[in-house]
Amino acid sequence: MTETRNKLLMIGAKYVHQKGFNNTGLQEILKEANVPKGSFYFYFKSKEQFGLEIIDVFLSFFEKEIGGVLSDKSISGLNRIRNFLKTTMKELENANYTGGCPIGNLSLEMGDLNENFRVKLSQAFTNMEFKLIESLKDAQSVGEISQSIDIETVAGFILNSWEGALVRVKAEKSIRPLAILEEIIFAKILIK
Amino acid sequence: MTETRNKLLMIGAKYVHQKGFNNTGLQEILKEANVPKGSFYFYFKSKEQFGLEIIDVFLSFFEKEIGGVLSDKSISGLNRIRNFLKTTMKELENANYTGGCPIGNLSLEMGDLNENFRVKLSQAFTNMEFKLIESLKDAQSVGEISQSIDIETVAGFILNSWEGALVRVKAEKSIRPLAILEEIIFAKILIK
Repeated sequence: MTETRNKLLMIGAKYVHQKGFNNTGLQEILKEANVPKGSFYFYFKSKEQFGLEIIDVFLSFFEKEIGGVLSDKSISGLNRIRNFLKTTMKELENANYTGGCPIGNLSLEMGDLNENFRVKLSQAFTNMEFKLIESLKDAQSVGEISQSIDIETVAGFILNSWEGALVRVKAEKSIRPLAILEEIIFAKILIK
Repeated sequence: MTETRNKLLMIGAKYVHQKGFNNTGLQEILKEANVPKGSFYFYFKSKEQFGLEIIDVFLSFFEKEIGGVLSDKSISGLNRIRNFLKTTMKELENANYTGGCPIGNLSLEMGDLNENFRVKLSQAFTNMEFKLIESLKDAQSVGEISQSIDIETVAGFILNSWEGALVRVKAEKSIRPLAILEEIIFAKILIK
């Protein structure tokens, strides 16, 4: 059961990332997973419950992949943030600027429509932000950035602006929004 | 014909803003507009064509309302940008933090799914950015901000980060992401 359940979640995450939650049909997921129609509710209480668990998949992906570089303590805090932006750019280039951040995508799609999604997405952002806070604290403790920087404010600002750059990347199909973000953050904000 | 067409566009814009393009049904729009089912294609070639015209409605709304403060030449360039952020906050508080920027929402929903939408959304961003460029140029010409500021880069950065703040507002249902944005922009970027 666990194996099929995970397979459904992985395939579901792929479709939701590609085309949104409301636009994803359970039938196409079941078909690709080779799971009989009608047995979905054996694995999940509802499509909503399925979607909420897909948010966990997305967060776990963020923590292992793009956000994983933020946890690599062998690298200085400031360079971890630089790597975070570089990794994002590399991943988006590899994906031809499609996809973007599934947590951000789902927030815009579901933030007004479903309170359970909204709360879970808000928590996911808090977790993502925490990785930035840790990196900024390390950067501050070794003097890479000024002591006067308010870590929590700047971490929120970087995460939110990163989400915004990804919105624009998806519309422009260019890396420029992230390049601008990197330029401003390192020239104006994360300074000694 | 024009009147009914406009009514359909206005109602369509409301629904697309509330719940997305794919999640909006033509039936509910026609019903609310009191237009007979089946006559939609008398007014629009396709749902896609309808959606593309809704983007014009959104852009026009931006230019008149939230972005309108950016065009008020009786106010200094820097204060126009401040007003732009203040107006966004006020509008979002009035809307209980729902809705957000329909151009950003549609970019995440449609940017990978439909090239016609993507191109039109990208142009809408360019138009929005132009308003910021004008304000920044005016601010620079009277010495409100440093001559060394690269106007085009900073305008793109402000617009994208504003979009990102709106993503987070929608998930958090709080004004904090915009307050942080305002704080950082005026303390670190738009300085003399």
